[in-house]
Amino acid sequence: MSPRTPASHPAPPPPRLVVVGSVGLDSIETAEARCEEALGGSAVYACAAASFFARTGMVGIVGEDFRAADRRRLERLGLDLRGLQTAPGRTFRWWGVYDRDMNNRSTRETQLNVFAHFEPALPAPYRAAPFVFLGNIAPALQRMVLAQISRPRLVMADTMDMWIRETPGDLNDVLRHVDIVAVNESEARHLSGEENLFAAARRIRRMGPSHVLVKKGEHGAFLLGPHGTMIAPAYPVERVRDPTGAGDAFAGGFMGALAAGGRVTPAALRRALTVGTVMASFIVEAFSLRRLERADGAAIRTRMDALRAMVRPG
Amino acid sequence: MSPRTPASHPAPPPPRLVVVGSVGLDSIETAEARCEEALGGSAVYACAAASFFARTGMVGIVGEDFRAADRRRLERLGLDLRGLQTAPGRTFRWWGVYDRDMNNRSTRETQLNVFAHFEPALPAPYRAAPFVFLGNIAPALQRMVLAQISRPRLVMADTMDMWIRETPGDLNDVLRHVDIVAVNESEARHLSGEENLFAAARRIRRMGPSHVLVKKGEHGAFLLGPHGTMIAPAYPVERVRDPTGAGDAFAGGFMGALAAGGRVTPAALRRALTVGTVMASFIVEAFSLRRLERADGAAIRTRMDALRAMVRPG
Repeated sequence: MSPRTPASHPAPPPPRLVVVGSVGLDSIETAEARCEEALGGSAVYACAAASFFARTGMVGIVGEDFRAADRRRLERLGLDLRGLQTAPGRTFRWWGVYDRDMNNRSTRETQLNVFAHFEPALPAPYRAAPFVFLGNIAPALQRMVLAQISRPRLVMADTMDMWIRETPGDLNDVLRHVDIVAVNESEARHLSGEENLFAAARRIRRMGPSHVLVKKGEHGAFLLGPHGTMIAPAYPVERVRDPTGAGDAFAGGFMGALAAGGRVTPAALRRALTVGTVMASFIVEAFSLRRLERADGAAIRTRMDALRAMVRPG
Repeated sequence: MSPRTPASHPAPPPPRLVVVGSVGLDSIETAEARCEEALGGSAVYACAAASFFARTGMVGIVGEDFRAADRRRLERLGLDLRGLQTAPGRTFRWWGVYDRDMNNRSTRETQLNVFAHFEPALPAPYRAAPFVFLGNIAPALQRMVLAQISRPRLVMADTMDMWIRETPGDLNDVLRHVDIVAVNESEARHLSGEENLFAAARRIRRMGPSHVLVKKGEHGAFLLGPHGTMIAPAYPVERVRDPTGAGDAFAGGFMGALAAGGRVTPAALRRALTVGTVMASFIVEAFSLRRLERADGAAIRTRMDALRAMVRPG
């Protein structure tokens, strides 16, 4: 394999944000359309969203079949790919099918492939990153990444039902070492044993993280932290083509915005929620990164302003 | 029956807001508790919420078994009950059971009783009311009420799946004569044929009303109108005891706030959404009106301020 960084850029600056997660090829079926082996994975969606705001370094693994065109798509977003390993074998693959009600989806098949033996090893320039997003991978791998970063200012971890069920010990260990945990509605209930989402978030805070981000898909998100609750309704999207990656893009936009500003104040968190909401809205409008790749600073600002006007309470 | 208005108040002022809907006795079972024959019905919840803001006249019917204590509860809220008829027979009754997930409920039994022959007749002082809320009753009855009000400034109608299915002609007629229609998620989809709620609201606007209020329960509400979309997340309630009446209280608070101010501007609509959200939050914290009856202006303002702080976008 050729080196990731062309010789004309001898020393790219270190990333402000490091993101670890899956990099894969998704085959997705909705009631209206389908796509085959499209670039996806939690690290891809989160990094793509963050790339508009902060220098972002990806940590992940792909197989030898990973397409040069997909790598170029990531490079065109300005991502630092020095942490993206290539291993012998095939890239991670996921097949998913959505109901007509896109809140329901089922997994047809997951092929871990090279991911089965992934051992994250961070390039030296990543190790001083002040902001870290541990995307949805096994909690033990999330810990392995965290152990390689010297003194991060803010760490957010995502998780999923499978880890809550199968590796609760590892997950509890992660929760004690992160500032924010991101969960969706069912994960919040599962992790806390509470049906009510606000009660669930309050209980999860007692497990370690100072902040709990509850992602509710089309109903938006809320963040519970030491300063109370911040509520962020979703950006209205009239034609949702594929919700895959919306939560990751939300998290990536959120962390990218914080990493860009560098401060973790209530005002910064509030703005980061608006950014996350808008980045997720681009993701759901097309399969893979297709709509997000066509976004730019002006399009993002337009949606942020529109969202603020719609949400401003009276 | 004795007259509704004691002789010591010879001429109460006319109501600013007239509300028609059901008045009944609800028996409700949740995963955690139950109540038997508690005061309920769409007109009761809406009027109770509106009563904190504007002089509100109730239009409805009860049987001879309607308890004097329940009537006194309504009077203590300052409601104008001159439009509440008493007819021979039994009061409307509803039995409902909620799942542990309170978004799902099933009706065990509905007894129309005196409601089966209800013909709304508005007292003279109601007929010049500038604001009208047509709560959830048969569209033909909603039209009958509307026909008796001379030149209302703003009319909102609620509806339900049953009328969409069984009396679509009557409902379409109502839609052509109201300014705002309030629907929940399933009603929005059913009425429009659109799965996406924003697309559904847009389509419903073409059926007549200039504004569509979509109520999403624990996920809040949004209002689509000529000025665009206003999004109002729900007030966080950690212990929801009984969601019955939350949508009616939302609508009542919303209309009460507008009736109090008298103007229908974007700023007034925005504030009315905040009021509706807060009034619904009191309703879900206890069966029937028990929590709302203990609220006062200070408690309402406290929640409105807290909600504004939580929702303010960054």
